[in-house]
Amino acid sequence: MKNLDKIFNPKSVAIIGASSKEKTVGFGLVKNILMGKDLRKTFFININQKDILDNKTFGKISDIQEEIDLAVIAVPAQFVSDVISQCCEKKVGGIIVVSAGFSEMGEEGKNRQKEILEKVREAGIPMLGPNCLGIIRTKNKLNASFAPITPIEGNVAFISQSGALLDVIIDEVEKLGASSVVSLGNEADINLTDFLEWFATDDETKVLALYVEGISDGKKFMEVAKKITKVKPIIIIKAGKFAAGKKAVQSHTGSLAGDYETYRAVFKQVGIIEVDSIEELIYSSKALSWQPKCANSFAIITNGGGCGIMAADYCKVKGIELSKLSKETIDKISSSPEMSPLWSKSNPVDVIGDASPARYRAAIEAVLGQKNVGGAIVIQTPQIMTDPVENAKMIIEAKKLFPEKPIICFFLGGKMSYEAIELLENNHIPNFSDLKDGITAIKSLTNN
Amino acid sequence: MKNLDKIFNPKSVAIIGASSKEKTVGFGLVKNILMGKDLRKTFFININQKDILDNKTFGKISDIQEEIDLAVIAVPAQFVSDVISQCCEKKVGGIIVVSAGFSEMGEEGKNRQKEILEKVREAGIPMLGPNCLGIIRTKNKLNASFAPITPIEGNVAFISQSGALLDVIIDEVEKLGASSVVSLGNEADINLTDFLEWFATDDETKVLALYVEGISDGKKFMEVAKKITKVKPIIIIKAGKFAAGKKAVQSHTGSLAGDYETYRAVFKQVGIIEVDSIEELIYSSKALSWQPKCANSFAIITNGGGCGIMAADYCKVKGIELSKLSKETIDKISSSPEMSPLWSKSNPVDVIGDASPARYRAAIEAVLGQKNVGGAIVIQTPQIMTDPVENAKMIIEAKKLFPEKPIICFFLGGKMSYEAIELLENNHIPNFSDLKDGITAIKSLTNN
Repeated sequence: MKNLDKIFNPKSVAIIGASSKEKTVGFGLVKNILMGKDLRKTFFININQKDILDNKTFGKISDIQEEIDLAVIAVPAQFVSDVISQCCEKKVGGIIVVSAGFSEMGEEGKNRQKEILEKVREAGIPMLGPNCLGIIRTKNKLNASFAPITPIEGNVAFISQSGALLDVIIDEVEKLGASSVVSLGNEADINLTDFLEWFATDDETKVLALYVEGISDGKKFMEVAKKITKVKPIIIIKAGKFAAGKKAVQSHTGSLAGDYETYRAVFKQVGIIEVDSIEELIYSSKALSWQPKCANSFAIITNGGGCGIMAADYCKVKGIELSKLSKETIDKISSSPEMSPLWSKSNPVDVIGDASPARYRAAIEAVLGQKNVGGAIVIQTPQIMTDPVENAKMIIEAKKLFPEKPIICFFLGGKMSYEAIELLENNHIPNFSDLKDGITAIKSLTNN
Repeated sequence: MKNLDKIFNPKSVAIIGASSKEKTVGFGLVKNILMGKDLRKTFFININQKDILDNKTFGKISDIQEEIDLAVIAVPAQFVSDVISQCCEKKVGGIIVVSAGFSEMGEEGKNRQKEILEKVREAGIPMLGPNCLGIIRTKNKLNASFAPITPIEGNVAFISQSGALLDVIIDEVEKLGASSVVSLGNEADINLTDFLEWFATDDETKVLALYVEGISDGKKFMEVAKKITKVKPIIIIKAGKFAAGKKAVQSHTGSLAGDYETYRAVFKQVGIIEVDSIEELIYSSKALSWQPKCANSFAIITNGGGCGIMAADYCKVKGIELSKLSKETIDKISSSPEMSPLWSKSNPVDVIGDASPARYRAAIEAVLGQKNVGGAIVIQTPQIMTDPVENAKMIIEAKKLFPEKPIICFFLGGKMSYEAIELLENNHIPNFSDLKDGITAIKSLTNN
């Protein structure tokens, strides 16, 4: 197992190719690394600029007296090899090569990559990249990337062979946050499997969310993944499934996309949860991060009949079982003082358009009180009689009574429910705006 | 063909069961109908309240001297039949029964529905409902529903067997708007097919978007739909596909969901575009409402390799062809002064993470300039080098050069692109936040 501690928890970082010019990679790295400036020493290297944001710069890494745990390299491809030599001489603890122009760029690039790989391997220094966004470790306030945003602390590690995709995810996971963000780039030295091994024992990480185009060390990956999925869920998007996408993979990270059916079979065999879109990846991560796993038996509670029917359809397609409500549960719902006589008397539990917060709560408590119901899917459509914020408060209270059973919400529509959704998610009750993708995420709670 | 003009363009409306109590159906109807109070006469009927929002009320409809074009009934189910008798006597032009408690409610409800149907049929008055949200006609500033929001004017008619689903849609289609919103309810008298016939010749409506659980007059529906799809696209969600959902349909609108495979075959045969989620329905409506149809040959332009690869995968699954770029097009892109030498040289056109607005524009103009390229899919990931608002502006300019070719955008992520997305959609360039659902919508542009 590779020791990545100097990469994830460095006491000193040098940015080679730092810049004060806005909207550049070099400036992004500077701005991000400065967020942790009270926790570690930061050094900027740029031969053309004397200082960057009031920090003195250095001409090269050997000019720095102190030890350097992590060197982040963002100079043009043709200069990377020289910089790597200097880093090896300096005996840095780890290297991240952000620069592009390597194995994704034909023969010349492949040779460049081979050259730098030989150097770091000889020096025994772990190297991430080249051609990557960098890494983020929220707990340590370490953002050694040029991502435009730093996520809040969370317990999901996002690991991706596409850096831009991480930018998308980071911009979306506002409430969920992340324990770590890793952009793999070309994986010349440290690869996906190395990171999986590291995250397996990482106390900050509960869920692993992956975007993958190709996996080079199939056998080792399978061994490692199989062990991890017994303790932590791994969710994956496999891109480059078909001819056009596969071709694009080659010019993207220079790897081979391989046969999709083989990947599918492997994921299934080792217990990886495969999803098919960014939304499904984020939704599933959120469900697994915030809610407990449960038996595959769900009750749907809704104030809109049509949405309950659609949810039931998606459950069928995704293999989610709908609980059969006991006579006791039905009686309990019917006898609740707030209940409408028009309620559906079966699952989906349609509590009717004029459902009050108390009526939602009565239904949730009744269904989750039934022993063999695993969890609740709560749908709210924004009707004139609906009070989204009060509904959210009631759901938060009801959830406290059933810590071992997940509640997943679908407050559908737009602006009318924004405040309520914020409240739900501040209390770690996931809310999904898309029924179909959300039901996919719920399935991940029932996998082992 | 039923004459629905008195329902869609009444000169006078009476609300029977109007109320001044907030968060009730009766109050929702009052508030909504008052929006058009300068365009028509409005009358409120309530035996218990003397006035509602400073409008004098009437005890019953016969107390009103003027003619009534449209009567909207929202009294409890057991009183509806009497009110209907009064409306028939008054010779109103059309009736909407909002009240629930009819065929969706067992034998008693079925009998009630039969009774009111006989009355309106004898009087020759078209009746919408019962058990519905009502209708909205934006051009006429007519909101005869208890929806919580009135959409802006648009050219899509949303017709639904679920009222709550319309509330969801209305809350989501902020920029798209609607020409009309029709909640079908139990379809005792006027049914889906009647409305389709009416919208076929409606100049305000370009696209028909439907939510359907069951269709009762299959043969007539097919005849009518087949004619309409030759001139206007019909998009449909069919809910209640499987056992659990079907069962829920019965307690929802009292109709039979029928065999889904039969529905699928029928939709295909008559040229209806079937989608599988609310998002897909809204996305497809937006694409068809705002952009021209085109040949099935698309170019993907992206500043993130991974997202381009995923888009290519979805295109393959959805049957969207990716254009083969000509040597001329590739040369044109390569020779653009702003272009990165790292660009992908094929479709998907990866313009690389540091893509400037001008680089996006050069790529869009080159691909759409190629004769056999039907349209462009433009993806933006929010990187530190990205300028979303300037990209949006460039796309809007580029679109002007190709009025006959659609551009569909995917500005992915969250907050970073909100302003840019607003700009795009103000200029009727659709932006979709979900790649997978968005690609489904694009497919609808290639159907005939």
